[in-house]
Amino acid sequence: MSQEEYVKNPHLDTMNEDILYHFSLSTKTHDLPQMFGDVKFVCVGGSANRMRIFAEFIHEQLELPGDLADIKDICEGTDRYSMYKHGMGVPSISIMLHELIKLLYHARCRDVIIFRIGTSGGVGLPAGTVVITDKAVDSFFRPQFEQVVLDKVIIRNTELDKDVAQELLQYSTELPETPTVIGNTMCTHDFYEGQGRLDGALCTFSTEEKFEYLRKASEAGVKNIEMESTVFAAMCRVCNLKAAVVCVTLLNRFEGDQISTPHCVLTEYQQRPQRLVAHFIKKRLGLLQ
Amino acid sequence: MSQEEYVKNPHLDTMNEDILYHFSLSTKTHDLPQMFGDVKFVCVGGSANRMRIFAEFIHEQLELPGDLADIKDICEGTDRYSMYKHGMGVPSISIMLHELIKLLYHARCRDVIIFRIGTSGGVGLPAGTVVITDKAVDSFFRPQFEQVVLDKVIIRNTELDKDVAQELLQYSTELPETPTVIGNTMCTHDFYEGQGRLDGALCTFSTEEKFEYLRKASEAGVKNIEMESTVFAAMCRVCNLKAAVVCVTLLNRFEGDQISTPHCVLTEYQQRPQRLVAHFIKKRLGLLQ
Repeated sequence: MSQEEYVKNPHLDTMNEDILYHFSLSTKTHDLPQMFGDVKFVCVGGSANRMRIFAEFIHEQLELPGDLADIKDICEGTDRYSMYKHGMGVPSISIMLHELIKLLYHARCRDVIIFRIGTSGGVGLPAGTVVITDKAVDSFFRPQFEQVVLDKVIIRNTELDKDVAQELLQYSTELPETPTVIGNTMCTHDFYEGQGRLDGALCTFSTEEKFEYLRKASEAGVKNIEMESTVFAAMCRVCNLKAAVVCVTLLNRFEGDQISTPHCVLTEYQQRPQRLVAHFIKKRLGLLQ
Repeated sequence: MSQEEYVKNPHLDTMNEDILYHFSLSTKTHDLPQMFGDVKFVCVGGSANRMRIFAEFIHEQLELPGDLADIKDICEGTDRYSMYKHGMGVPSISIMLHELIKLLYHARCRDVIIFRIGTSGGVGLPAGTVVITDKAVDSFFRPQFEQVVLDKVIIRNTELDKDVAQELLQYSTELPETPTVIGNTMCTHDFYEGQGRLDGALCTFSTEEKFEYLRKASEAGVKNIEMESTVFAAMCRVCNLKAAVVCVTLLNRFEGDQISTPHCVLTEYQQRPQRLVAHFIKKRLGLLQ
């Protein structure tokens, strides 16, 4: 297999062993093509519990053999990531993506689609709405990601796969209780000051300035705010990996900052992007008409 | 207690309830002054296992009552953070710090010292060296942190508490097998391209460019590289919280990029900052002469 698929690093060919440190996997100690060579869909999310629930859900949905209790965390040698919890924020997901993309390369995978399934704050949408990301934008509403490489800043495009997004939107109409829209997703590097929350330990702006910022975001087509989408879109694009971001909104930021909805309701909300992505995978596998 | 201690947010006084969402704690459901009011030292780290080991270690060192098995994760309602695992990267630790600083405020704590105990890549130091951070610097070796607030970028100073750093350095000489230096710590937003690693999924620079960057860092006084120190220093400084960063180096970046040292050796390295901080706390509590 040529490096043209997925990784973009000439140095990798010179290495005898590649240790995927944050996954506790290595090309010497694990047979990665045997373990992962048939992977066609990768789903990543920020929280370990949520991803365990999703692993069990998709196992049932695809009627896979074996017992639910046998679903193992393949990264059990580390507590940095579960397979595939990415933690919160751009730096955390970017470490995971570097190692995941190398894993797909070492395992000789092809035609993979990767989904980020997450939670977010809504911008003018009722809580519980699923947002399929059209463009991932930064705090200034630009569809780009600034990557620091050594001491230089380079700009990367954050466009996602348009066909996958449209297909997801179409399938959403076939599902009950999964209100879904498509729009821009703003990615910030901070949950409080960066997202205009008034309830952080630090806050230097007024309520009016908060709402003015949210209104500007809304006018720029922003439907939700989270903390990983720009680097996810940028890295997948550079590496020719088809990618989609599907996040549910946990609150409407025009109505508040705190997430005070009961836990059981939040849990149901979090299942909505999972249902949609599972439906997509079943369609692609020909398990549904 | 006046807001002059710790939080810097006039909006907090107008809230009936404050939900510390990522900790699963709230001012209405938990008696925070009773639970945390006597806290004088806070230790945070990136990995849950490491912090559990530290909690057990400090429990023994301080000869606290109760059984080791009873040490509970106070945030057990969430898997985002353990008490106090901060995850990896600036956005992840900044969420934790907002909620931690609010927790100290709600609990009416005073005279608190906060330590980040972590791991890092060394710049010209043998693996296993403990680095006490003098200044936290960014990828361009500047002692500052750029915080995006709404759509504006503000610059915050990243100086840490000089007295605590000097005291730590002095105590390090009293400990066996804890080689320790003081110097600048570079904080990047990426583990691979941002730290000049040649082994990521993406790499656009040459081996020579990597070493030139590391040499420039070394000339700027950088002793180690990690991913949280600038925002940690900046937020603690704005909030009048005395702070120190104590990280062990897992490798010498002039010798390689991959972390290939055996797990048992890495585990021993990770205990070194823990020993130093525990020693500091025992000294401050008058448990040692």
